[in-house]
Amino acid sequence: MPLARIDLIEGKPAEYRRTIGEVVYQAIIEVLKAPTGDRFQVITEHATRDFIFDPNYLGISRTPDCVFIQLTLNKGRTVEVKQAFFKAVADGLHERLKMRREDVLINLVEVDKENWSFGNGVAQYAQPPQ
Amino acid sequence: MPLARIDLIEGKPAEYRRTIGEVVYQAIIEVLKAPTGDRFQVITEHATRDFIFDPNYLGISRTPDCVFIQLTLNKGRTVEVKQAFFKAVADGLHERLKMRREDVLINLVEVDKENWSFGNGVAQYAQPPQ
Amino acid sequence: MPLARIDLIEGKPAEYRRTIGEVVYQAIIEVLKAPTGDRFQVITEHATRDFIFDPNYLGISRTPDCVFIQLTLNKGRTVEVKQAFFKAVADGLHERLKMRREDVLINLVEVDKENWSFGNGVAQYAQPPQ
Repeated sequence: MPLARIDLIEGKPAEYRRTIGEVVYQAIIEVLKAPTGDRFQVITEHATRDFIFDPNYLGISRTPDCVFIQLTLNKGRTVEVKQAFFKAVADGLHERLKMRREDVLINLVEVDKENWSFGNGVAQYAQPPQ
Repeated sequence: MPLARIDLIEGKPAEYRRTIGEVVYQAIIEVLKAPTGDRFQVITEHATRDFIFDPNYLGISRTPDCVFIQLTLNKGRTVEVKQAFFKAVADGLHERLKMRREDVLINLVEVDKENWSFGNGVAQYAQPPQ
Repeated sequence: MPLARIDLIEGKPAEYRRTIGEVVYQAIIEVLKAPTGDRFQVITEHATRDFIFDPNYLGISRTPDCVFIQLTLNKGRTVEVKQAFFKAVADGLHERLKMRREDVLINLVEVDKENWSFGNGVAQYAQPPQ
C-alpha cells in the first residue's frame, strides 16, 4: 500500500535512483510487513536551486546527496516499527549506495485502509460490510 | 478543496493528461459533492525508470499506462462515498480514454477543514469562532 | 519538521522561486515556531497545461501566477496558528514578490511527531520510551 515520493538532486545515474527505490521497497516488505509486490514509487530529480534542505538542522550534517522519502501508508504501525523502518532505509542506502545516513530524510503520512484503490475502481483494503 | 497530484508516464498527448484531470474533477463534483470550480491539480510526467509500479500487486495486471492519483481532501467521507469515487474515476478514465481500469491507482489523504487556504491568506473552511 | 511542496508555473526566475521558499520558511519559523534551520522544500515548475487551477473558486480570482504550497507538518497547531500561518505566507509573498494574495493556495497535511526521520535512520521527534 505505501506510495513513495522520492525526491533528490538531478544528475545521479538512473541505476542509483532505482536502487533507492529498491531499498525503500525492501524495508516496506521486511519491516512494515507489506505484501510482496507492494511497490508504487515516483522518483523526481530536481535542480539544486529547487531542492532545498538545511545543511545542519538538528545538528545533522547534510550534503547535496540528501534524499527526501515521503511515504503514504496505512495507519497503525507502532513507534517501534516506524523507527525500525527509518533505520532499515538509512542502513540500506548506506550499504548499497554508500549514501551518508545523515542524508536520508524520511516522512510518513498515514491514511485509513479504505483510502486506497489499486485498480478496477475498488477499495481493496476496505472492510466488507457486516 | 481537493488537491490532486496525478503522476503518469511521459509522452502521452497533453489532451490525454488534461482529460485525466477532467475525469477526476467530475468525480469530485458528482461523487464527493464538492462545489463547482473546486479544481486544483498538478499533473507530472515521469520517465519509465522513475515511475515504478508493481505489474501484478493484488492480482491486478498493470501496464505502463498506469496512473497514480493522490488526492488530498477534507475528512469525513464515508467508506461508501470513497468507493463510489474510486469507481467513478476508473469508469470515467475507461470511457473517455480507453484506459484499463486495472491501471488506475488512487490514494486519498484526509485533512481537517481548517487546513486549506484558497487565497488571500484566509482559511476559508475554518469554522467561525463561536 | 515541515516538508513543503511548492508547485508553480514554469518560467519564473530561479530567484523568484527561491524567494517563495524563503517566505514559507520564515512563516514556519515565526508563526509555527519551528526551530531555526527547519527548512526542507521541493519546488517544481509545471507547464500551463499540467498546472490546473480554477480561476474563480470561492469567488477568488486567480491568475497563472497561482502557487500551490502543500506543507506536511506535525499535528497540534490551533486553528488560530494555522490562520496566522496562511496570512503570513500570503502577506510575505505579496510584499516580496508582488504576488497577488488571491494567487496563494496553501494546504496543510498533519502527521504524528514520530513520523519523521531527519537523518541517521532515527525518529528524532519520537518520545523516548518511559
